[in-house]
Amino acid sequence: MTTYRALEVTGSRQFAQSERELVAPSYGQVRVKVEYCGVCHSDVLAVEGLRADPSRPVVPGHEIVGVIDAVGEGVRAWHVGERVGIGYLGGHCGECDSCRRGDFVNCTDQPWTGTNVDGGYAEYAYARTSGLVRIPAGLSSSDAAPLLCAGITTYSALSTLDARPGSLVGIQGIGGLGHLGVQYAKALGYRVAAIARGTDKAELAARLGADEYVDSTAGDPGAALQKLGGAAAIVATAASGASMSPLAAGLAPRGRLVVVGAAADPLSITTSDLIFGTRTVTGSLTGSSIENEDSLAFATDRGVRPMNEIVPWTEAPAAYERMLAGQARFRIVLDLAA
Amino acid sequence: MTTYRALEVTGSRQFAQSERELVAPSYGQVRVKVEYCGVCHSDVLAVEGLRADPSRPVVPGHEIVGVIDAVGEGVRAWHVGERVGIGYLGGHCGECDSCRRGDFVNCTDQPWTGTNVDGGYAEYAYARTSGLVRIPAGLSSSDAAPLLCAGITTYSALSTLDARPGSLVGIQGIGGLGHLGVQYAKALGYRVAAIARGTDKAELAARLGADEYVDSTAGDPGAALQKLGGAAAIVATAASGASMSPLAAGLAPRGRLVVVGAAADPLSITTSDLIFGTRTVTGSLTGSSIENEDSLAFATDRGVRPMNEIVPWTEAPAAYERMLAGQARFRIVLDLAA
Amino acid sequence: MTTYRALEVTGSRQFAQSERELVAPSYGQVRVKVEYCGVCHSDVLAVEGLRADPSRPVVPGHEIVGVIDAVGEGVRAWHVGERVGIGYLGGHCGECDSCRRGDFVNCTDQPWTGTNVDGGYAEYAYARTSGLVRIPAGLSSSDAAPLLCAGITTYSALSTLDARPGSLVGIQGIGGLGHLGVQYAKALGYRVAAIARGTDKAELAARLGADEYVDSTAGDPGAALQKLGGAAAIVATAASGASMSPLAAGLAPRGRLVVVGAAADPLSITTSDLIFGTRTVTGSLTGSSIENEDSLAFATDRGVRPMNEIVPWTEAPAAYERMLAGQARFRIVLDLAA
Amino acid sequence: MTTYRALEVTGSRQFAQSERELVAPSYGQVRVKVEYCGVCHSDVLAVEGLRADPSRPVVPGHEIVGVIDAVGEGVRAWHVGERVGIGYLGGHCGECDSCRRGDFVNCTDQPWTGTNVDGGYAEYAYARTSGLVRIPAGLSSSDAAPLLCAGITTYSALSTLDARPGSLVGIQGIGGLGHLGVQYAKALGYRVAAIARGTDKAELAARLGADEYVDSTAGDPGAALQKLGGAAAIVATAASGASMSPLAAGLAPRGRLVVVGAAADPLSITTSDLIFGTRTVTGSLTGSSIENEDSLAFATDRGVRPMNEIVPWTEAPAAYERMLAGQARFRIVLDLAA
Repeated sequence: MTTYRALEVTGSRQFAQSERELVAPSYGQVRVKVEYCGVCHSDVLAVEGLRADPSRPVVPGHEIVGVIDAVGEGVRAWHVGERVGIGYLGGHCGECDSCRRGDFVNCTDQPWTGTNVDGGYAEYAYARTSGLVRIPAGLSSSDAAPLLCAGITTYSALSTLDARPGSLVGIQGIGGLGHLGVQYAKALGYRVAAIARGTDKAELAARLGADEYVDSTAGDPGAALQKLGGAAAIVATAASGASMSPLAAGLAPRGRLVVVGAAADPLSITTSDLIFGTRTVTGSLTGSSIENEDSLAFATDRGVRPMNEIVPWTEAPAAYERMLAGQARFRIVLDLAA
Repeated sequence: MTTYRALEVTGSRQFAQSERELVAPSYGQVRVKVEYCGVCHSDVLAVEGLRADPSRPVVPGHEIVGVIDAVGEGVRAWHVGERVGIGYLGGHCGECDSCRRGDFVNCTDQPWTGTNVDGGYAEYAYARTSGLVRIPAGLSSSDAAPLLCAGITTYSALSTLDARPGSLVGIQGIGGLGHLGVQYAKALGYRVAAIARGTDKAELAARLGADEYVDSTAGDPGAALQKLGGAAAIVATAASGASMSPLAAGLAPRGRLVVVGAAADPLSITTSDLIFGTRTVTGSLTGSSIENEDSLAFATDRGVRPMNEIVPWTEAPAAYERMLAGQARFRIVLDLAA
Repeated sequence: MTTYRALEVTGSRQFAQSERELVAPSYGQVRVKVEYCGVCHSDVLAVEGLRADPSRPVVPGHEIVGVIDAVGEGVRAWHVGERVGIGYLGGHCGECDSCRRGDFVNCTDQPWTGTNVDGGYAEYAYARTSGLVRIPAGLSSSDAAPLLCAGITTYSALSTLDARPGSLVGIQGIGGLGHLGVQYAKALGYRVAAIARGTDKAELAARLGADEYVDSTAGDPGAALQKLGGAAAIVATAASGASMSPLAAGLAPRGRLVVVGAAADPLSITTSDLIFGTRTVTGSLTGSSIENEDSLAFATDRGVRPMNEIVPWTEAPAAYERMLAGQARFRIVLDLAA
Repeated sequence: MTTYRALEVTGSRQFAQSERELVAPSYGQVRVKVEYCGVCHSDVLAVEGLRADPSRPVVPGHEIVGVIDAVGEGVRAWHVGERVGIGYLGGHCGECDSCRRGDFVNCTDQPWTGTNVDGGYAEYAYARTSGLVRIPAGLSSSDAAPLLCAGITTYSALSTLDARPGSLVGIQGIGGLGHLGVQYAKALGYRVAAIARGTDKAELAARLGADEYVDSTAGDPGAALQKLGGAAAIVATAASGASMSPLAAGLAPRGRLVVVGAAADPLSITTSDLIFGTRTVTGSLTGSSIENEDSLAFATDRGVRPMNEIVPWTEAPAAYERMLAGQARFRIVLDLAA
C-alpha cells in the first residue's frame, strides 16, 4: 500500500499528521500532487467542524495548486501532467436543478473542498473534473493558490457588476480578500475607494491602486462615500454585519452592496435606504471553475497578485493560528515540497 | 379671481377646507380638473409634515385622476380634454444625472405630489407633463386612481423581475398594495404565494388569484416558502422590517426580496442567507409615468382592479383616519364631484 | 440476443426496417422504451445525410417520448419507470467551455438525436441523462412529443425576450412551429401578430390566440407591422431568408428578429434598419433539457397544445413525405405501440 | 443686427459663406461660440441633402466644441462660460415614447445637428440643453470634437457589450471610427483584433493597442477570427455590407456583430450562422448626451485620443473633399478661430 502524508483536523484548533492510502481516482475524478495550498479563513469551517461531519477527521485547505497525477475513468478533457487548481467548490454534480440551469455555484450536491471532503493540507488531493481550474503559464503556483478562493470571491463579485467604466466602487476591508479586491477593481477600470478601519492601511491601499480611502472609524462611511459621489457598488469583505450595514447608505442610485464575507452578526438595513435610490444588497459566493480560470487569466495579464507568506506545510498549525489572529499579511501559502 | 376648493393640512391629523386661486399652468405644466383621488398611506408624509415644508399648508393626495383643463406654454404632447393621472412623482426634471440616464424615479429634482407640492384632495391639481399618465378608455377613473400609487408600486416591482414564467412569487401583506400585487403577479404568469398574518385573508387571497397561502404567524414563513420550492421573488408590502426580515430565507437560489413598503424598523438579514444561494434584497420605488401607463394598460386588459370604497371628498378627514387605522378594504377613493 | 425494431435511413428518402441489439445503457446513459416520436422537418438532416455520417444508416427522430427502461452506471437522478423526453440535443458533455459556462445548447460535443446518433423512429432509444426531459403528469405523451423540438424552439425564443407585457410580438409562419409559437406568445402575455402568406390561415391564427394577422403577400409586412406600432420581437419560423428579411423593418426601436428556421438562402438586411432604431437580428437554437421542462410545464398549465396527426410508426415513410410536402396539419406523431 | 459667419451647403459638394443673424437662444436652448468642429463622413447627409430639407441651405457639422455664450429661458443646469460639445443628436424631445422610456437615441422628435438644423461649420451654434455634452478639463477642444461622433459611436457600441474582460473583440475598419475603436476596446480591457484590408495598417493598429491583426483580403476573415478563438463581439465601422457580412461567421457562441457604419449595400447573413452559436447582429447609433460625457471622461483618463489634422474652417470645402476621398488621417477638425 502506497501512502501519502496529510494534516488532518482532530478537534478545535487541533491538527495531526496522518498517512492515507494513495488510491486511484474514481470515475470522473483526478488525483492531484499538491504543490501549494493557501490558508484561508474559511478553513475554520473544517477545523471547527461547522459544516463537515465532526466525527470524521478531515484535511483542510481549499486553495490548492498542483499537477494531475492520475485520471479516473470517463475523464477525457484533463490529462496527467497538467497544472490545475482546486477551490472551495469541489466540482458540481451536473444533475440538480441549479446545475441544469448552469448555476454551478448553487449546486446542491457538491463537495466543499477541505470541509466535507479532504482538502489540500496534504501531499495529494482528489477532485471531480467539474471542479478543476487550469493555471495559466505566466502565473506561479504559489501566487495562484490564494486566487482560487480569496481572488475568485472578489473577482466574481466585481466582474459581474453592471457598472459603467470609471464608476466609483468601494472595497471594504483591506485584508486577505480586500487587498486582491482593490487590485481587481482597479484593473477592471473602476475608480476604487478602499474602506477600512483607521488610517494604517491608507498607504498600502494607494499602492494597490485605490483612488480614494475611507477611514470607517472617522465618521459615517456611508456619508463619506456620498461625498465622493456615491458608490455604484461596494464589495464588503469584512466579516462583520455591524461594519457592513452603514455602507448601504453610501451607494449611488441603483447601487449594489455585495456581501462576500459571512458574518456572525446580521446586516441591519434601513428600508428607505433601499427604496429611495432603488438600491440593492446581495450576496456573492466564490465562482465556478471556468470563472476561476477567467480570474486567473485576468490576474496574469493585469498583474494582480496576492501578497503571500510561503511556509513549509508542516508549519500549518502555527500558520493557521496566525491567520486566525489576523496577523497574516495577507495570505499564507503552504509549500508542500518543503 | 376664480378660485377652487382644496383640503389642506394644517397640523398633525388636521385638515381645513381652503380656497385657492385658479391660475394658468406655468411653462411645461398642465392643470387638471380632478375627478377622483385615492387616499394612500403615504399621505402621512404630507399630513405629518415629514417631507414637506411643515410651515406651509399642503394639499395631500397623489392618486389623482382627472381631465386636463388648461395647458401651459411649451406643452405639445398633451391636450385639454384628455383624461390623465398624476402619481407620487410629479414630473422629472430632465436635467439631473438620473434623468439624463433615463432613470426618472431617481430624479433629484422632482416634486412629490401631495407632499412638497399640492396634491389631489382638491378640485384642481397642477403637474409637469413629465409626470402625467394617460388613462386607457376601458378603465374607470375611480379604478385608475389607486393604481397610480398602490398599483404601480407592485406592478413595477413585479414586471421588472427576471423570473421564469410559472416561478413562485410571494406577495407579503394582503392590504392596499398586496391585494393588487397578488392580481398583478398572477396575471403576469407567476405561481403566487400570498403571505399574511393569520388565516383571515386566505379565502380572499385565493379569490384574487393566489395559488398558495402562507400564514406568517404559524411558524417561520421562510421555511414555509422553502417547502413550496423557494420563491424566485417576494414583494414585501407590509411596512415592518421585523416581518420582512425572515422572508429572505424563503428565497430560491438567485432569488430577490423586493422591499416596497418603507418601515420604521430596519431589516435584519443574515449574511449567509445572502451569500449561500446568492440572494438579493432590493428596494423598488413607484414607477415612471410611462411605466404607470404600462401598468394601467395591463390592468385594463387583464382585469386587475382595486377593491375601492368611494366617498365624497368632503369626508376625507374621516377616510384618512380609517386608512390610518387599517380599516380600509382596501383603498379609499375620494369623489371630487360628490 | 434480444433485439428491437428500428426504421433506419438507407438513402435519400429511403427507409428500411432493421433489428438492433438491445444493449445495456453505458455510463451516464439511460435506455428509453419509446411511446411516441414526432416527425420534424429537421429529420431531413438525418435522412439526407447532411450532418450524420452518410455511410452509416441512422434512425431519425428527435421528438421522443417514452419510459426509462434501464439506467447505466453513475446515473443517480433518473429512474426506471419515469416518463421522459429526448429532444434534438442528446445531452451536453459538461466539459467543453460552453458547458462550463452553463451554455448547454452551444456544447461542442453533444450528440444530435436522430442525426449523428440513433433517434426515435424505433422501439427503443438511448440518451445521456443530461439530455433527458421530465414529462409533467398532465400532458399526454403524444402531445409532449412535438413540444420537444417545435415547442421548445419557439418557447425558448419567446420566453427569453426582454419585452414588456402586452408588447406586440410577431410569429412568422403558421405551420409546425408557428402554430405553437402563437399559443406560447399569447399565453406569455404578448399581443400577437401572426404573419403568413395569404389569408387562408387568418381564422386559425385567431383561434390559436393571435390578435393581429399580417398577410405577407399583401404588401410589405414590415410596413404592416409598423402600422400596428412596430414589433418588440418577431420569431421567424419560415425557413426562407427571402421571407424573413423584410421583417426587420417591422421592428420597434430596440426590437429583435429571432431566427429559428434555418434557411437555404441568406438574410438580406439593410444596415440602416439596424442602426436607426438600434434593432437586432439573432438566432435561437432549441433549448436545454431543463428549458424543455419549463416549456412543458408552461404548456401543461396554460393549455398550449400541438395539433397532431397520430399515425402508426410503420407508416413513417409516408408521413415523412407528407411532412416534406408541407401537408401535415401541423405535426405528425408516430405511435410506437401501433 | 449682429451677425455671424457660417458655411452653408448650396448644392452637391457646394458650399457658400453666409451671414446669419445672431439671435437669442429660445426656451430650453443655449447658444455656443464654436471653437472646433470635426468633419465627419455623416456630413454627407447634410451636403447631399439626403435627410435635410434639400430646398433650404443648411450648415453642416456635428462634432462641435465651444463655449456657452447665451442661455434661453428655462435653462437652469447650464451656464454661460461652460465648455460644451454638441454631437449628432441635437437634444431629445422628452415627450415621445422613446424619451419617456429613457431611450433618448431613439427619440422620434430630435434635431439632427448639421442635417436638419444648422451645425458647426459656423462661428455659432444653437442646441437644446438635452443635447449638450460637458467637456472634461483634461481634454483639449480639438481632441474632444471627433469624440462626439466618431468616438461615442464606437465607445457606445463597446461599453455596452456584455463581454467578459479579456474577451476577443474585433474592430473592423481602421479609419476615422476604427482608430478610436481600437483604443477604446483596448482600454476597456478586451483583447483586440483589428480587421482591415491589406497589411498597410497592421503597424498602426498595433501602436493603437491591437493585439491581433486580420487582413480581410488574405482569406476569409470569419475563419481567421475563429482561429483566434472566435470574437465575443465585432464592431463593424466600414460602411460596406459586403465587407461586414463575412464577419458573422467569426463570432464565438453568443457573439455579437455590432454595425455602426451605415452602408449602401445590405448585409447578407446565413441563417445557420445565427442559429448555430446563437449569434446576434445588431445596430448601434451614437449615444445620448451623458453617454458622450462618459466617453469623454473615459478617453481623458485612459489616453484615448483621435489622430487629428486641424485646418482653418475657411478650408472646409477642401477638407470635405479629402475626407470623401478617404485621405484624412484620420479626422479633420475645423478651427473656428483660424
